[in-house]
Amino acid sequence: MSRAKLKIAQKLKLKKFRAELNLFVAEGLRLCEMAADFSQVEFGFFTADFLKSARAEKLLGRLEKIAPMYEISERDFEKISDTKTPQGVLLVVRQKFSALEDVLKKFLVVAMDAVHDAGNVGTILRTAEAFGCGVVLLEDSAEIFNPKVVRASMGAIFTLPIIKLSRQEFLRAMKFSGVEVLAAALDTSAEFYFNHDFTKKSAVVFGSEASGVSAEIFGAAEKIFIPMSGSAESLNVATSAAIIISEAARQRAKI
Amino acid sequence: MSRAKLKIAQKLKLKKFRAELNLFVAEGLRLCEMAADFSQVEFGFFTADFLKSARAEKLLGRLEKIAPMYEISERDFEKISDTKTPQGVLLVVRQKFSALEDVLKKFLVVAMDAVHDAGNVGTILRTAEAFGCGVVLLEDSAEIFNPKVVRASMGAIFTLPIIKLSRQEFLRAMKFSGVEVLAAALDTSAEFYFNHDFTKKSAVVFGSEASGVSAEIFGAAEKIFIPMSGSAESLNVATSAAIIISEAARQRAKI
Repeated sequence: MSRAKLKIAQKLKLKKFRAELNLFVAEGLRLCEMAADFSQVEFGFFTADFLKSARAEKLLGRLEKIAPMYEISERDFEKISDTKTPQGVLLVVRQKFSALEDVLKKFLVVAMDAVHDAGNVGTILRTAEAFGCGVVLLEDSAEIFNPKVVRASMGAIFTLPIIKLSRQEFLRAMKFSGVEVLAAALDTSAEFYFNHDFTKKSAVVFGSEASGVSAEIFGAAEKIFIPMSGSAESLNVATSAAIIISEAARQRAKI
Repeated sequence: MSRAKLKIAQKLKLKKFRAELNLFVAEGLRLCEMAADFSQVEFGFFTADFLKSARAEKLLGRLEKIAPMYEISERDFEKISDTKTPQGVLLVVRQKFSALEDVLKKFLVVAMDAVHDAGNVGTILRTAEAFGCGVVLLEDSAEIFNPKVVRASMGAIFTLPIIKLSRQEFLRAMKFSGVEVLAAALDTSAEFYFNHDFTKKSAVVFGSEASGVSAEIFGAAEKIFIPMSGSAESLNVATSAAIIISEAARQRAKI
């Protein structure tokens, strides 16, 4: 029955229930297309108003073949939606993480160490996907199935190899695989990021907005520094990630 | 009287009144320190609770010498604050733009062409400041005195040379000054951004989240492209800005 399913979708706004049910929500045309391509869709909802384009009709046709889809009223849709101007399509999708080897296959590993802001986590996922990186989530980072992260990731969450590890597991795995661990640091005596040789496989760790990389990782990592000329003390963490990831990709392209 | 001033601070939440009064609001310890250093402070407010650190006491001492400061209740403070957990200090500051020559003195000009999201505009200002760029605001970008932009800029708004120009004025000014205009484009046949020679002075234009750089600017600009290897169609605009600005700075540092 769609009422019981609606209740589940509504509950999935809370982290507690996402973790308990191992499900999350994808909303909007583009994200639902990606969910249909890359995820296990459990069920979904749409409003009559959604079906106003050929692209929407096509998506619904595909979805109806893979999972139960319920037409609901705008009022009901507002209850499950997380956006101000809902597009009228929402899917309940199974959470999934990748195997370590899939993360390590990529030319660069991007690790997040207590990155708290959902927008920053989502933007880093989007950038990591665009450049073909693997992602490690360490303790205390924003939950990636949070609707704000899903949205800011622009669907990267569906296609990126992502794994969750403790700090200790991460350090051990990188050591075992011969991957150098780098930490972005506000230390002017550290190596400038563009002087680092990214043609060797590395894992770059980005830390919390307020206090940077955790002591545990920092102590074990090589430090790299982004030289700045203004009066700013630091950069936004998603900005730092973009700068370092793109430099690593540039060096690869230049070989 | 502090009641009338409180009303003004409250009204400044609206763009209309910010434009009318030519004022805006800086909130929190760090932003207020920067406002005191770099801006014309008209008046300000604090709560008893704010004065719990030596740094806060010192700031208030300085502020009291330059502008009327009013102690108000927590309840009144909540009315003027734009944050969930207010720090208890807020200043009303005069809006100011820079002269074109101050923008052009910088090694790189960063122009925003209808960048709508306040968080993106603030983050681009923060990045531009960190690398020592000048900024041009073209039509339809988010208003830089919006509290969300001020916050995301982390104070860059106080120290950056920023000018507002129409698209036509901008193109004419760059031509007149011999500054090449570049547009970040989703065009794989365009020059890769890292192959462009940024040791010559250039102006890079970043466009709207949904539709990129306006036709008017696009037609007159050289296109540069950020090559991507994932399935993403594009990058966040503040991410693209970080990648191109840092590459320009890297090339300068490498001379």
